[in-house]
Amino acid sequence: MRELLLECHERIKPFIHKTPIMESGMIENFLGNDLYFKCENFQRMGAFKMRAAVNAITQLTDEQRTKGVVTHSSGNFAQALALAARDLGVPAYIVVPSDAPEVKKNAILRYGGEVIECFPSLDARMRTANEIVEEKGVTFIHPSNDLRVIRGNATAAMEMLEIHPDLDILIVPVGGGGLLAGTALAAHYFGANIEVIGAEPLEADDAYRSLLSGKIEGNITTDTIADGLKTQLGDVNFPIIQEHVKRIILVRENEIVSAMRLIWERMKIIVEPSSAVALAALIKERQDFEGKKIGIILSGGNVDLNNLPFE
Amino acid sequence: MRELLLECHERIKPFIHKTPIMESGMIENFLGNDLYFKCENFQRMGAFKMRAAVNAITQLTDEQRTKGVVTHSSGNFAQALALAARDLGVPAYIVVPSDAPEVKKNAILRYGGEVIECFPSLDARMRTANEIVEEKGVTFIHPSNDLRVIRGNATAAMEMLEIHPDLDILIVPVGGGGLLAGTALAAHYFGANIEVIGAEPLEADDAYRSLLSGKIEGNITTDTIADGLKTQLGDVNFPIIQEHVKRIILVRENEIVSAMRLIWERMKIIVEPSSAVALAALIKERQDFEGKKIGIILSGGNVDLNNLPFE
Repeated sequence: MRELLLECHERIKPFIHKTPIMESGMIENFLGNDLYFKCENFQRMGAFKMRAAVNAITQLTDEQRTKGVVTHSSGNFAQALALAARDLGVPAYIVVPSDAPEVKKNAILRYGGEVIECFPSLDARMRTANEIVEEKGVTFIHPSNDLRVIRGNATAAMEMLEIHPDLDILIVPVGGGGLLAGTALAAHYFGANIEVIGAEPLEADDAYRSLLSGKIEGNITTDTIADGLKTQLGDVNFPIIQEHVKRIILVRENEIVSAMRLIWERMKIIVEPSSAVALAALIKERQDFEGKKIGIILSGGNVDLNNLPFE
Repeated sequence: MRELLLECHERIKPFIHKTPIMESGMIENFLGNDLYFKCENFQRMGAFKMRAAVNAITQLTDEQRTKGVVTHSSGNFAQALALAARDLGVPAYIVVPSDAPEVKKNAILRYGGEVIECFPSLDARMRTANEIVEEKGVTFIHPSNDLRVIRGNATAAMEMLEIHPDLDILIVPVGGGGLLAGTALAAHYFGANIEVIGAEPLEADDAYRSLLSGKIEGNITTDTIADGLKTQLGDVNFPIIQEHVKRIILVRENEIVSAMRLIWERMKIIVEPSSAVALAALIKERQDFEGKKIGIILSGGNVDLNNLPFE
């Protein structure tokens, strides 16, 4: 796996930004630890998902590339797959629920993806994606439950560990589980005894409960501002998470908004609510982390400026 | 002056951040030029004013330092002077109009400054500052019309020119004129034939009209979202601007908000409206700048998240 991860990183490098790592003296002083933020909000199309999309497409055969790729997502993976496909000259079909905001559909179109609308249910979108696979012979790429995606995601933490190999802890948000699984692999193969911790909204706590019960649990509610984290764990990433991740911290909605405000006000960077979940988790359990050297992956910066949670 | 500027930069370095220079492929493609943003929104306390405040205080005598400094401002210079004074163990008195927002007063207090409220008029605040000078023997430092301040401001452009000595054009916002004068000096002494252009809100166009008439003109309106640019030119900075600056571009309020949104959405960084004025000017007159290598100073990132102009 170590070799596969290194190969993946080399393969995607021409298509991604090596994002900066930022610090905030004020937040560090407040929390009493060394804190490094990997700024995937500055990644191309605004989120770490670009790494995964490029890795998935670059691993296709020539024949597969000619036919194209399909995914179902209205979030960052939709934009990432569209942009990565355009970079590589591959057609991209994105299945989007018909009630998705226009701004999301437009972003996919702007990156050259073809938007296919479907009835807004998990069932309908999987069925629609399957139909496109059968009709057009394209390759389906799942936004999180796919090893190519997981390895692509791992490269964010790998870049952090190149510069800070002595991190004690890495905290990342968990939604579909692709970033958490990827980060866990990066920490295992490139870190020195790093603890990887997931951060999850209390309102979409499938990963927390899955880790507890030992099997994949569904979300009971997904009523969270962290729209990137409403998705569910899958059978590819859950075993990796089970093996390498011991702890998931749950945070409330107001804690997410407070952490997001702290990042915006103090660091002067725009992160989406899903990214703030990781800092919210650290703040909530800060007594456990004093004196530690901690990395946080700020997963993305795509927000709707017309609809912000501050008041 | 060249030597004075270099000495100034060395003197303030321990107290300021060497802020990053960012690019945006998307904005460059849109405008058809090479574009570099000096991110003073990432400066300590969130604006370039920190450079000026540190430079002013470090040039005081020991006796002056013991007594302290005073300024009148409710904006970034107030916070900058408070923080710089705290760094250097100097008392700071900040005269603030009584109707200034609580959030501004609290920021000054957080940095250890003493807030002195006065009646909200230009007259009253100058009178109050003078009273403090007489009572306490402290040194008055003007937010923009002071050579120590102007030289401190110059260091932002100097850092840009260290990395990009071949810039064709530098565009900076103009309010009180301190940044424009400082940038003009930096360009003159460290650049190779760089044109420095001011960017100003149409609603606070004193610098534009002053350059035209050849004498300092007052603002007729200050009804602009760019709250840092409501101030007036002064007799120290105007001659420098007259000598080195040939052009000021005026922009409308909606152009400022659009440019600000572009920076937030595309670059994922938080800048205040005053900073966006420079990009708005470039966008407005973009036909003049095609193929050029352009630097913009993003002057600050202090915004009230509860009161944003997006809708």
